[in-house]
Formats: sequence, C-alpha cells, structure tokens
Amino acid sequence: MEKPGLPSGTRDFGAEVMKQRRYITGIMQEVFEQHGFGALETPALENLKTLQGKYGDEGDQLLFKILNSGDFLSKANESHLQEKNSKAVVSEISDRGLRYDLTVPLARYVVMNRDKIQFPYKRYQMQPVWRADRPQKGRYREFWQCDIDVVGSNSIVSETELVAMYQEVFKQLNLGVMVRVNHRLILDAFLPLAGSLDAWTQFMVCIDKADKIGAEGVSKELNERQLGQMVSAWEFLNQTQQLAGNEEKLAAIESYRQKIESETHQLGLDRGVKELKMMLAMLDNKGNVELDVTLARGLSYYTGCVFEVVVNDSQVPADFKIGSIGGGGRYDNLTGMFGLKDVSGVGVSFGLDRIYDVMLAANLFPNNLMNAEDTWLVCAMDEQCLPYGYKIAESLRKEGKKAELYPGTPKLKKQLDYANARGYGFAVIVGDQEMNSQTMVVKNLLTGEQETQKLK
Amino acid sequence: MEKPGLPSGTRDFGAEVMKQRRYITGIMQEVFEQHGFGALETPALENLKTLQGKYGDEGDQLLFKILNSGDFLSKANESHLQEKNSKAVVSEISDRGLRYDLTVPLARYVVMNRDKIQFPYKRYQMQPVWRADRPQKGRYREFWQCDIDVVGSNSIVSETELVAMYQEVFKQLNLGVMVRVNHRLILDAFLPLAGSLDAWTQFMVCIDKADKIGAEGVSKELNERQLGQMVSAWEFLNQTQQLAGNEEKLAAIESYRQKIESETHQLGLDRGVKELKMMLAMLDNKGNVELDVTLARGLSYYTGCVFEVVVNDSQVPADFKIGSIGGGGRYDNLTGMFGLKDVSGVGVSFGLDRIYDVMLAANLFPNNLMNAEDTWLVCAMDEQCLPYGYKIAESLRKEGKKAELYPGTPKLKKQLDYANARGYGFAVIVGDQEMNSQTMVVKNLLTGEQETQKLK
Repeated sequence: MEKPGLPSGTRDFGAEVMKQRRYITGIMQEVFEQHGFGALETPALENLKTLQGKYGDEGDQLLFKILNSGDFLSKANESHLQEKNSKAVVSEISDRGLRYDLTVPLARYVVMNRDKIQFPYKRYQMQPVWRADRPQKGRYREFWQCDIDVVGSNSIVSETELVAMYQEVFKQLNLGVMVRVNHRLILDAFLPLAGSLDAWTQFMVCIDKADKIGAEGVSKELNERQLGQMVSAWEFLNQTQQLAGNEEKLAAIESYRQKIESETHQLGLDRGVKELKMMLAMLDNKGNVELDVTLARGLSYYTGCVFEVVVNDSQVPADFKIGSIGGGGRYDNLTGMFGLKDVSGVGVSFGLDRIYDVMLAANLFPNNLMNAEDTWLVCAMDEQCLPYGYKIAESLRKEGKKAELYPGTPKLKKQLDYANARGYGFAVIVGDQEMNSQTMVVKNLLTGEQETQKLK
Repeated sequence: MEKPGLPSGTRDFGAEVMKQRRYITGIMQEVFEQHGFGALETPALENLKTLQGKYGDEGDQLLFKILNSGDFLSKANESHLQEKNSKAVVSEISDRGLRYDLTVPLARYVVMNRDKIQFPYKRYQMQPVWRADRPQKGRYREFWQCDIDVVGSNSIVSETELVAMYQEVFKQLNLGVMVRVNHRLILDAFLPLAGSLDAWTQFMVCIDKADKIGAEGVSKELNERQLGQMVSAWEFLNQTQQLAGNEEKLAAIESYRQKIESETHQLGLDRGVKELKMMLAMLDNKGNVELDVTLARGLSYYTGCVFEVVVNDSQVPADFKIGSIGGGGRYDNLTGMFGLKDVSGVGVSFGLDRIYDVMLAANLFPNNLMNAEDTWLVCAMDEQCLPYGYKIAESLRKEGKKAELYPGTPKLKKQLDYANARGYGFAVIVGDQEMNSQTMVVKNLLTGEQETQKLK
C-alpha cells in the first residue's frame, strides 16, 4: 500500500503548534473584541463568478476550482474538449472555487446583508485561504489570513483604531514592531508631475522597491523607465524620509504644496496631511508608529492611509529574513465590485503564518503553553484499581486540574513515560494497598519526590 | 451587475452566531483539554487517493474534487473526452479533493507521524467538512464536525472518558441528554443464529430502524427479508431493553450466554458484558447513561462499544424533531486503510450544527453573549473633540472594558442608535465644554440616566 501524504503546500497542525497558534489568535481576538469588532466566518466555497475578475489575470489562474458534481462533462462544449482547450472548458465544468482572500467574501457579505447590517460595520475574520501558487519556504497553498475592517465609515478614527490594535496585539505578544504609515493623497500629489496615470502607477511600483534596490536603485529604474521627471519627486520623498520625526516630515510635505499645479491635488495633500496629524494626535505613539512617506503599498485600490508592519531586527536572529507581518489601508470602493457604490472601507491584515514564524525564531512563546504545572496522570497498577483511579482523576478535574487516568495498566514505567513526554507535573499511583486504605501515592514528576496522601 | 450569492448549502456566520457557536466549542475545548486531549487541524485539501475508497461508492460520488491547475486537459485521455466519460476523466484532471470527514485525515496523520506520536494518542478536531449532497433543512454542503478519539489504546478507560466528556459538555451547556451505550460483541453473539455474516448485517440494519418503524415493524421486516430465525433474537433484545436498569439488562444478557453455540461468541459476549460493567462502575451515572441493547449504529467498522446521544424531549418544543446529536464507537482497525495494522481506536463525535439548532430552540444560550453590560461607546460632538474622546475610549479599555469611539461625528442620535443596536451598556458624550473642563457625560443606556463625571 502506498504511503499516505499531504498535498503539496498544505500542513497538519498538531497539538503543540495548535496551542501556539491559538496563543496568537486568542490575543488578537480579545483585542479586536475589546475595540468593538465582531467575528465573521464565510464558507470555503464561493461561486466562481464571485471570485473571478477580482484578483487580476494572475489571481484568476491561482484560484482553486471545484469540479461540478455528477456528469460534469455533459455541459462541456464538444469542440472545446476536442481542442483540449482547458481555459474554455473550465467555466463549463466548474461553478465554484475556494476562497482566495477575505476581502472579496467581506464585500459579498456586506452587499448581501446591507439591510441587516448597522454601519459602520466592524468585523474581524481569521480563516484559511487557498492559492494554487508554487509552494516554497514560508509560502503555502493553504494559509491563514486575519483581517480586520471597518466598512461604511470614512473617519480617520477607524484608521487610528486599527493602528492602535496593531500596537496592542504586538505589545501583548512581546514582539517589537514598527508600524509604518503613509497617505495615498500625499503620493497622489505627484500625479501632475508624472503626467499620466500610467506613469504615476509605474512611479509607485518603483518606490515600493526601495527596500530591495535602495534609493539610488529607484532613481536608476525611474530613468530606465523614461520617468526622469519623477527622480526629483523620489529624491524629495527620500530626503523627507531621512528627517528625524513625524512632525518634521509632515512639515516638509506641507512645504511641497506650493509646487503642485492642480488645486484638486493641493486639496488632496491638505486632507492627507490633516488626517495623518489627527491620527498621530490620537495615538499613544510609544515610538513605534512612523510616518513613511516612501510607503506606497502597490495595490491600486488604496485611496487613503496605507500601513505596513515590520519586525524590529533586534528581536530575531541575524540570518532570519522576513518581510512585513501586516499591512493594509483605506479603499473607497470596497463593494463597488458587486454594484454597491460609495461604501468606504479601511482594513488591515495580520500575517498569521509569518507572525508564528517570527514568534518561534524570537523564542517568544510562553514555556508552559502545552501544560501548566497542574497536570496530573493517574496510574493504576492493575485492572481492578482502574475504577478507584478513575474516581481520583475525576475529583482532580473537579478541582479544576487537568487530569486523566492512563487507559490500561501496562508497567508503571510506560505510564510515567507518557506523562513525562507530555510534560505533566504530577503522577498519582494507585494499587490494591492504596485502594484498600483509601490513599494514593503522589509523585512530583519535576523533582521526583513522592509521598502517600489520604484521599480527600 | 448580478447580485452576489452563496453557493447552495453553504452559510455565512455573522458576529452573533459566531458568539453562540464559540460558546459551544469553547466549552467543548475546555472539557477535552481537561481530560488530556490535544487539538489537531488538518488541511481542507487531501489527495484524492487518500479519500477515495474510504466512504463507499456513494461517498466517492459526494467528494468535492479540485480541478488540477494550469492546462489540466493536457493529461486527459482523448477518447474519454470525446465520449464525455466524466467518470473516467475525473481521475485524469483532478488529484485533490476536499476533506469529507475527520476520521480519514486522523488515520492519515497517525500513519504519517507514527514515529513522533506517543501512544495512546488523544486528539480532538473541530473543522468543517464538505459533501456534495443535496442540501435540505439542516443538511449543508459545508458543515462542522467535532471528533474526539483515542488511538492506540484498547482499554475501556478510554470509552469511559469519552462518555464522561459527553456528560460534562452537555451539563455545562445545560442541555439534558441521554447517552445510549451498547457493545458490538453482545450483538455479535447472534451471528451463529443468523447463520451468515450477510444475514447478521441485515439484522443490524433492521434493528437500527426500531426508532422509526417500531418493534413490530422490525419483526415484520425480518420476516420479509427471510430472516425469521432472527425474530426471537430481536424479541429477546427488545424485551431486555424494557427492563428497568442497566444491571438488570446486563443480567439478562448474561443469561443468554448458554444459548450461544460457538465458544468464540460466548467469550465475546463475556468481554462485552465485562467492559460495560467496568465502564458503568467508573462513570458517575447521574441517570443519563443508559445501556441500550438494541443500539447497533450501522457502520460496519465498529468492533466494541457503540454510543449515541439524544436530547431529552422535554427541553425542546413539541414540533422540534431532531435525531441524535452525537455518536461513535470503537473500531479496531483505524489505520489499516493506510497499511498500519493493529492500531485500535475509539472515538465519538459531537454534531455541532445540530447542537446549535437545539440550543437555539431550547433557548439555552446566555443572554449577554454579544455584549456584557460593561460595553461603552464614546460619542464626540464635533471633530476637534475626537482626540479627547479617543483618549477616554483608550482609558476605558485599559480598565478592561469593551470600548470604542464612534468613527466620525454625525448627530448624537445616530451615534446612540449604533450603541443601542449593539446592546451596549453605556455611552460617554463629549463636546467642547467637557473637553475644556476635563469631564464627560456618562449615560446609562439601559436606564437612560446620565451624569457628568470628572475624568480620572
């Protein structure tokens, strides 16, 4: 018989990993709820027409598609089959696909339930998503997203709350991070200089690479792309970014206003600066929120604040490379894809798998996650003592302890091995003698000490 | 634009339903962990060769199959395509399917990790499964299973622990249930009388219908199936079942021993009776564990104890019909399907969706699940008060309260509507006056009382 295996890019999570993952998600959930966010879970299956066309051509390729049930070929076009035209046949034999992210399901949910939802709608969602990507280190075909969004509010209070939740979650996880913030309306101010939306979009793509190719690399690439006029804009942003504090940077941005030709973009810059100031005034900064005027966050649908969270290098081993562990921004047309206009949303996500990897590398999980000290194994020496042992386990549980009777009566060593392998704190050993005298031998598995105790 | 919808047989779970579902799963999780069980999560995707052939022909039909990525038709057989032979083409264009239950993934996990796992392995798993069944009331294509299993122990202690967890979970949920227990080795004793395995299997199928067709219906069907010799066996079981207590029933079963011709089946009956006695001796019965000698639990792979949980009728409205909300048993060859022999397992499942429906019908969810009284909305009267309001929300959260600042400054009525719709306990109202005097107006949303308080 062939050995069973896992599909490439998927994982099992055993007891210990589950404890660690739940330690992270438990903290998140508590922080989200405390800020007035409610949970949402959507199905793994979505109609393909819900998913397709939302993630670009590449995204459509990466959707996992479900074969229709029964005689699925009956509806397929014969000449498409003959030509082995996979692309044409797909839509004839598949109506559903697996969830690709949590944003499209949110938009669908909001549109479907717009009459029931009281806006602003604040939801968090922590569920797996699936992408038929080539698996590699740290990239899976089934992975977890954790999104928090506020839908139907255009107040900067929502952005502030999201950043504060980043701060609070990572504080509780003991993970030092920097939250980088920028505003798309500030970058928009360079649109007149770019001359066209396409040129400006290319500019955004270039400056997003600064982390990888360096400031000079960006200038070089701009020239290569025939965007020489944008080099000065990049230099301005990069110099501004060197300034010491958020206030200084904002002042520099404001000084740029006079160079903008279009009034629309002047007003946009005003609004961007005002919102950032408001947010920074509300936040308890703690030194871990930084205005980063070079932050673009490529996705074209962002229209206001954008965010990115990076881990402080000092917390992880030098050779441990990890990108951002979170990000997001405001998108003014979340539900437009489903025909509901003018619903503004703002959201951020936590990269659960990456956060897990960082926590592990930085050794930040509490030691006693698997078993508190107060865990007990009751060992019976022979079968007739099992009921007596069971009663002891039951009474320990009634005291709130984690306790179990070993199922069966193999040699004591085997039973104690089981307890030690699981990191249990105590063993209770009972034989005929203990049963007859209503006592038990209590052994501390950490110190090895043992003593006979009367049953309570 | 077409209105977006959900695939048939799937559901969204909004904030309130999520609270209720987590109330149930939270209690389960705590009880399982207290008994020494650890969590397991497996991927939604499994290789089709892992899934196929495990659930019978009908099950194979109900598997959701994933289309291979890219040019999936390239490997398909041309004449199969031409014939539109869906059945043959499936295996040529699909290598993976969606998880159909939690038992096969458990078996796969145990076989793959047998060198790492310390047996007995005690795991619980709460995850959705998918079946391409025809959706109807209470039957979904995506639904939740919650399984607990002990693998690698053949001690009746494990059965006892599972029944005790049923008792404890439903006690904490305030849901009155009866746990029905039987032992396959007792039913096996009628195999010599049946004369063939096929006849005996038909007998099992018939007695499983007693709930629906009544005792006489079972006798009638046995005669119709040419199983007249089994009518006396059924009458014996049915009469035994009328006896008052578990002890009386076991005594009646023991008295049947002399009628068994084969020694193997005599010894089997002895073992079945002994294990049931042992289990009942260990359990704190509380009157909700009943030996049901007519319980067969059709699935052929059970080899020892079998279980079923039913809700007490008195708890639900008279017109509320629901089948069992849990069940399971011992299967001596769990991992045999993947080539690992002689690993005994015992497991039970909780029917999460049905339990949810019962809890709702019986009105058993706590009232304050959505919001404890201590939830606060801070309302700012104009934009310049937002930072002041934000600080108040922040300080309320630091006191452990659930608190948020309304995002924006619409009319107070709109802000209070938001708080009332969510069942919040308090509103804090701040305007220029409050900001200047470092005070706040605190309004009790339940009583309508309000008073001005100094900021702490």
